[in-house]
Amino acid sequence: MSDEARIPMRRVGPAGMAGPEVEGEYELPLATLETPLFSSVKRGARVTRENGGLRAVVLDARMTRSVLVEADDAVEAAEAARGIAAEFDRLEDVVRGTSRYCRLLEIRPQVVGRLLYLRLAFFTGDAAGHNMSTQAAEAVLNDILERRPGLCYGSISANLCTDKKPSAVNGLLGRGISLVADMTIPHEACESVLKTSAEAVARLNERKNLLGTALAGGVRSGNAHFANMLLAFYLATGQDAANVVEGSQGFTTAEAREEGLYFSVTLPSLIVGTVGPGPSQPYAQDNLATLGCREEREPGANARRLAVFCAAAVWCGELSLLAAQTVPGELMRAHRRMERRGRGKPET
Amino acid sequence: MSDEARIPMRRVGPAGMAGPEVEGEYELPLATLETPLFSSVKRGARVTRENGGLRAVVLDARMTRSVLVEADDAVEAAEAARGIAAEFDRLEDVVRGTSRYCRLLEIRPQVVGRLLYLRLAFFTGDAAGHNMSTQAAEAVLNDILERRPGLCYGSISANLCTDKKPSAVNGLLGRGISLVADMTIPHEACESVLKTSAEAVARLNERKNLLGTALAGGVRSGNAHFANMLLAFYLATGQDAANVVEGSQGFTTAEAREEGLYFSVTLPSLIVGTVGPGPSQPYAQDNLATLGCREEREPGANARRLAVFCAAAVWCGELSLLAAQTVPGELMRAHRRMERRGRGKPET
Amino acid sequence: MSDEARIPMRRVGPAGMAGPEVEGEYELPLATLETPLFSSVKRGARVTRENGGLRAVVLDARMTRSVLVEADDAVEAAEAARGIAAEFDRLEDVVRGTSRYCRLLEIRPQVVGRLLYLRLAFFTGDAAGHNMSTQAAEAVLNDILERRPGLCYGSISANLCTDKKPSAVNGLLGRGISLVADMTIPHEACESVLKTSAEAVARLNERKNLLGTALAGGVRSGNAHFANMLLAFYLATGQDAANVVEGSQGFTTAEAREEGLYFSVTLPSLIVGTVGPGPSQPYAQDNLATLGCREEREPGANARRLAVFCAAAVWCGELSLLAAQTVPGELMRAHRRMERRGRGKPET
Amino acid sequence: MSDEARIPMRRVGPAGMAGPEVEGEYELPLATLETPLFSSVKRGARVTRENGGLRAVVLDARMTRSVLVEADDAVEAAEAARGIAAEFDRLEDVVRGTSRYCRLLEIRPQVVGRLLYLRLAFFTGDAAGHNMSTQAAEAVLNDILERRPGLCYGSISANLCTDKKPSAVNGLLGRGISLVADMTIPHEACESVLKTSAEAVARLNERKNLLGTALAGGVRSGNAHFANMLLAFYLATGQDAANVVEGSQGFTTAEAREEGLYFSVTLPSLIVGTVGPGPSQPYAQDNLATLGCREEREPGANARRLAVFCAAAVWCGELSLLAAQTVPGELMRAHRRMERRGRGKPET
Repeated sequence: MSDEARIPMRRVGPAGMAGPEVEGEYELPLATLETPLFSSVKRGARVTRENGGLRAVVLDARMTRSVLVEADDAVEAAEAARGIAAEFDRLEDVVRGTSRYCRLLEIRPQVVGRLLYLRLAFFTGDAAGHNMSTQAAEAVLNDILERRPGLCYGSISANLCTDKKPSAVNGLLGRGISLVADMTIPHEACESVLKTSAEAVARLNERKNLLGTALAGGVRSGNAHFANMLLAFYLATGQDAANVVEGSQGFTTAEAREEGLYFSVTLPSLIVGTVGPGPSQPYAQDNLATLGCREEREPGANARRLAVFCAAAVWCGELSLLAAQTVPGELMRAHRRMERRGRGKPET
Repeated sequence: MSDEARIPMRRVGPAGMAGPEVEGEYELPLATLETPLFSSVKRGARVTRENGGLRAVVLDARMTRSVLVEADDAVEAAEAARGIAAEFDRLEDVVRGTSRYCRLLEIRPQVVGRLLYLRLAFFTGDAAGHNMSTQAAEAVLNDILERRPGLCYGSISANLCTDKKPSAVNGLLGRGISLVADMTIPHEACESVLKTSAEAVARLNERKNLLGTALAGGVRSGNAHFANMLLAFYLATGQDAANVVEGSQGFTTAEAREEGLYFSVTLPSLIVGTVGPGPSQPYAQDNLATLGCREEREPGANARRLAVFCAAAVWCGELSLLAAQTVPGELMRAHRRMERRGRGKPET
Repeated sequence: MSDEARIPMRRVGPAGMAGPEVEGEYELPLATLETPLFSSVKRGARVTRENGGLRAVVLDARMTRSVLVEADDAVEAAEAARGIAAEFDRLEDVVRGTSRYCRLLEIRPQVVGRLLYLRLAFFTGDAAGHNMSTQAAEAVLNDILERRPGLCYGSISANLCTDKKPSAVNGLLGRGISLVADMTIPHEACESVLKTSAEAVARLNERKNLLGTALAGGVRSGNAHFANMLLAFYLATGQDAANVVEGSQGFTTAEAREEGLYFSVTLPSLIVGTVGPGPSQPYAQDNLATLGCREEREPGANARRLAVFCAAAVWCGELSLLAAQTVPGELMRAHRRMERRGRGKPET
Repeated sequence: MSDEARIPMRRVGPAGMAGPEVEGEYELPLATLETPLFSSVKRGARVTRENGGLRAVVLDARMTRSVLVEADDAVEAAEAARGIAAEFDRLEDVVRGTSRYCRLLEIRPQVVGRLLYLRLAFFTGDAAGHNMSTQAAEAVLNDILERRPGLCYGSISANLCTDKKPSAVNGLLGRGISLVADMTIPHEACESVLKTSAEAVARLNERKNLLGTALAGGVRSGNAHFANMLLAFYLATGQDAANVVEGSQGFTTAEAREEGLYFSVTLPSLIVGTVGPGPSQPYAQDNLATLGCREEREPGANARRLAVFCAAAVWCGELSLLAAQTVPGELMRAHRRMERRGRGKPET
């Protein structure tokens, strides 16, 4: 049998980037079995390139792990929560001792009954940081348990992190790289390239991405198909693609403004890195190098740069699909065109 | 540049299956960059094999797509909702006309203001059915718009489906194949193979998977890392791996019973198929054949069979991780063992 | 000490109702300590009265209770789920035996591991039906346990109902009376009475009620303050006001259309009745009588009629607050005006 | 017509309180139409009184309001977010100028596209603080808009607060008074007073409150009927009872321990005050005085004390209902006993 799953990969675009994080034209690497995604992102990339470029801004970067300890009752749990918060400086040192790059950014306690959940946030440099943060969390946990004999071990990971499960916590308290990409598309380009209007996209975004998602019982989510682009970008750059789960929980906004269609994607939780076993796969290295994400920079800068391109891919694919869905029949027409060319199924 | 992302793949196990859907021993194909997952699933598979086998039961199978139409006001939207429900038989024929396999199972309307969302459920045979259901939905939508000139096109996809976004709707109303896998593990095996106890696993499951997830603002989710196994199984069998998003929303239950640890995984939303472009990739065909999922069976039976193996992989990996997390220090110890053997990072 | 909490009560309006459920002008009874709500609803009522009237349409009415039984494993739980569904007719008779009015409408099973949750839906006439449905559920549960000795009692109420807790299930599967009230307000009235524009209200609704709620991790909710009007209406008409919890999970839509501001409220889960101990309190009887909700009608018609007035109150208060929040400084100005007149705090 | 809704009110108990916040025996005031709640809370109170007393600990206290401003694009929104955070000290002064008691505790920005949501947290002394925080938020908003002409007014309240709507944000970031009440009930008392066992209550809590709620698509919620006790306590003490919505989102934990049943309620979001128009109603003053909540204390201490009694009422009613639901038939039996005594319907 084969010892590799082989996922079709292409570089699509180029997309035009207009700062402040990245400027210039870049092809976006995507690996997916849903090959119509390639042309979808390509159409979006054309829009960025021909209209002054997409802008992206990083809001935050951190990796989290939550640990659980058990006290004898709630009063003790609350006391421990306060005490641990007061020892932040010492715990910062404990974390520093676990890795060259890892830094403790925050400890957030939650007391429920006699249980104390501690959500720890770390800076993890250019690594996605699953591992680095587990290692650091373990050191913090051991330290706490040693100094507070009244507490018992609960779990090294307590789902308040939260990794690869949908939740509200990551968006509200931060996990991974969080950023926004936006751009205003002239009305003319909406018509000529996207075959739609700013008004139609804005209306669809409100009814589908905001209201439709709310009706579905979605949680902190308002987009059409971020997960498709995330999967493809994650696979192409050696990321842990199971993190599309939390990555999928982002927001699209669309507005008809005087100068055109303002269109943005907000991605609260991109879990990406440029170092580690995944990104070191040859095909991933290749793609990272093309994006300029393997250069000498201060720790974390390559990962943030990578997140910007990921956001660009999401922006391009999201715009293209929404535009298509404003036009009756267009989604299936695009699909049939693809199929005739032997290209599988369209994104959703 | 390379034109494929190459994901390490192995067949792990074998797992012992004890009916009613599947019996015998089968190796589970997994493709992932998170290679410690291989040994994690392997340990779980050993537990199934040595203790009478895992049982799995399929609860439901359907694919969904929601469309949106706009009426002039809520009274008209409500009337249309009632009228369309009354035309189910005719719409069933419309759907039948779109594909040899596709069948209309349900139409669920939701009226919000003057908007009418229609969630359509289809049987799609052995295909995951993204495409087949979009095509059928388009036919239904066209039919409705033709017969009801008071209604306007809103969207061919309205996020109430819901595809690749976390939500409550899929679990409550069904989407994909939904199934449960369970087994009682003798106390002795808990100790010797899993290095834990039934009580410890049950306690951790309640505190981490149920309470921890609730604290995180999770939605219809209660598990440790379903997404890891789903991603690996989806990649190995040519599925659309972005569907790990909704797949990740399942439940683990664990109980200390007299005879041992009762351990189950409930997966409400597996989007898998055995036909189509993805499952036709050579490596995927290979894996499907080994699992007996490319044989002549009534439509849908191969896909359901595949879902059973997917659930088995999830069960094995979930059990192994939870067991590890009951033991202070074990998660990182396992990780370091892996690392020494050059195997990357552990699952979360 | 006093043996009554005394909540200030007024009839506000009248609101103009334009069918199809109710026509004419009616004062809306409200009891609340948040007395600025009176003028807020009054302003909305004026809008309905002067512009052709509010329309309201009932979509559904049912009361639910979920019970829990425990099987030995998932296979047995799944078999029981199927078997119980097949016995619907007999269980319908069982329910009929518990009350003159109660009728079984639906049984929805959910299997998780070896647990079987059954969500039962009932018609309960003009009663809100908490009690009637518990009684009927108990009869169904007893019948099931007697006929299936392999099953054990789990709980008479299993939170999948779900009563007085926020959830997605009530909106998706129905609980209580669900309805929509809508109306298009001429642009001129937006300006003269509401001091705003259709565009401003629509924009605010999207950003606050849809996007803001999503950011907050809201679940199936998109409104500004339904709970305020629900509480006041429930208290004035003798309802169980703890049901504001699920009542609060509704949606406001607002659109600038050519003819004016289209404004709607969708209330998926009003738990109201016109009979029972609460509605029989003298002040409640009085209010119900004024609304024409104690007349001879087919069972359920008075309760549905009452729900329409409740929706009207919600519509009026929601419109008024949103309009105020489009204008910088207006919310606090209104508050200060109230305060000078000794009237407490404004709604939120 | 009457100008008051009159809600039956009683003082129930007394409950035994064992510190650290409150010690001694106190009757708990409750006003509700669901009169079986009185005996339910009474049974729980007996358990506290006879077994050493309930303990309660306050974790946090704050009131929040979110405002919305609009920038020209995401880059400007992100810059404004950073700039405003850097001006915390000045904004603290702005807040101080709005009221004798109000203090700014935190500003949390969220950027989505070009929108900037600012969640402001305040200390509001003994007032619930709806008003005080709106006034302070308005001052902050005005200050920001004056100093940053690039920003436009969006809304004085943007649903990220979030008031009277279910969400995840209040539990994760804090809103209102958050506290835990817990106690271990000897096995003997479980049997003699509650007619159940520690094991049965723990099992039911896991299956109903945790798993059942998750299945229902609940959000940050795991309890049986907090809303019932909250409504009754809020009405009796002059609170804004529409805040039961967020109050209902709390957690019950139950464990069989060697010494008995450990039972806790965690209430993340009690919106209560001892001053203001509501608490100044004569019946409310009376009740507050009995609880010792109108004495001279440092600002905020009376409100926190009141929250402790509220938590006690919740603990008592929650325990009693869960115990009843462990016993087949008990819920309806209790109900029928009530009914014979003319007392309405039982809690759910």
